[in-house]
Amino acid sequence: MELLKKRILEAGQYLGKGILKVDGFINHQVDPQLMDQCGKELAELFKDCGATRILTAEISGIAPALMTGKYMNLPVVYARKHKPITMPDQVFLTLAPSHTKGRTVELIVSPEYLKAGERILIIDDFLASGATIAGLVRLVNVAGAELVGIGALIEKLFEGGRAMLSAQQAGLQIESLACITKMDDSGLEFQD
Amino acid sequence: MELLKKRILEAGQYLGKGILKVDGFINHQVDPQLMDQCGKELAELFKDCGATRILTAEISGIAPALMTGKYMNLPVVYARKHKPITMPDQVFLTLAPSHTKGRTVELIVSPEYLKAGERILIIDDFLASGATIAGLVRLVNVAGAELVGIGALIEKLFEGGRAMLSAQQAGLQIESLACITKMDDSGLEFQD
Repeated sequence: MELLKKRILEAGQYLGKGILKVDGFINHQVDPQLMDQCGKELAELFKDCGATRILTAEISGIAPALMTGKYMNLPVVYARKHKPITMPDQVFLTLAPSHTKGRTVELIVSPEYLKAGERILIIDDFLASGATIAGLVRLVNVAGAELVGIGALIEKLFEGGRAMLSAQQAGLQIESLACITKMDDSGLEFQD
Repeated sequence: MELLKKRILEAGQYLGKGILKVDGFINHQVDPQLMDQCGKELAELFKDCGATRILTAEISGIAPALMTGKYMNLPVVYARKHKPITMPDQVFLTLAPSHTKGRTVELIVSPEYLKAGERILIIDDFLASGATIAGLVRLVNVAGAELVGIGALIEKLFEGGRAMLSAQQAGLQIESLACITKMDDSGLEFQD
């Protein structure tokens, strides 16, 4: 998606160690118009997947998932990282290592909003090593739901998340709007 | 806003101790169409406030703030509760007690996205005791920016947040889309 790639080139910052800072338009400050267009594009890419619900992880996944849900007319569930007091005692819970947090985080979904037989589309901001998304996939599986697709705004192809997730479920539709093939101090390269 | 009040009556759950569970459409699962309509309504209410940026707090403030920002064509900044590695060393930071978490949380904003002279509209999911929003107001003040309004989806009038925030800044525009005046085991009552 050219709009997103252009913004990454203009306003993204490579901080070293594989970290791309996009705090000015995705991760701390959000550009709602850009996010709306990204949601529209993801909805178009997944229009035939038959999803009944969208699943993401708080915090940075909420904005792209919400906009995708708006265009697909689907409810959006965000896995919590801390169990709020409003959640029932029995929950679906898994652990996922967080690269940018430097520690393991919990991903928690209430069985009220993730049910057997549903068709789940996972949307997140980044697809990098795939660790967070693999955690969401485990929640889908434990709930007895079916994973029908994975979409991300930005992919770091060289971190291997796509290969790992594809190996788990052959033929799964995985899409990203800006796929980075190379990133170092000299700059970024996108696929295509 | 009748649409939101109707949904609260249909799908909200009073858990006792002042806690209203809206996890099915705001706080864990989000209804994107409802949130879009709420954002449209908040944008209309604040159309004359001259805001240059919207500020909210992660996590549950992101969805309503994003949709309001879409209709007002403004960037949305969400205060972080944990400092990510992409954030500069010097930040604006304050502490706020969280009723639903039962502990004090940090609210952190990078000076990159909150600057002196800006006109800030604060949007959050709940206005209850006002503790979180008061924390956001302190961040606005310490940045040298100007607070021009506060908007929330749901207000619990009886928890006193509006009175406290109004006392801090006379004449400040404070709006909520569903203002609850009474809440107990027998049911909810809305203002108007």
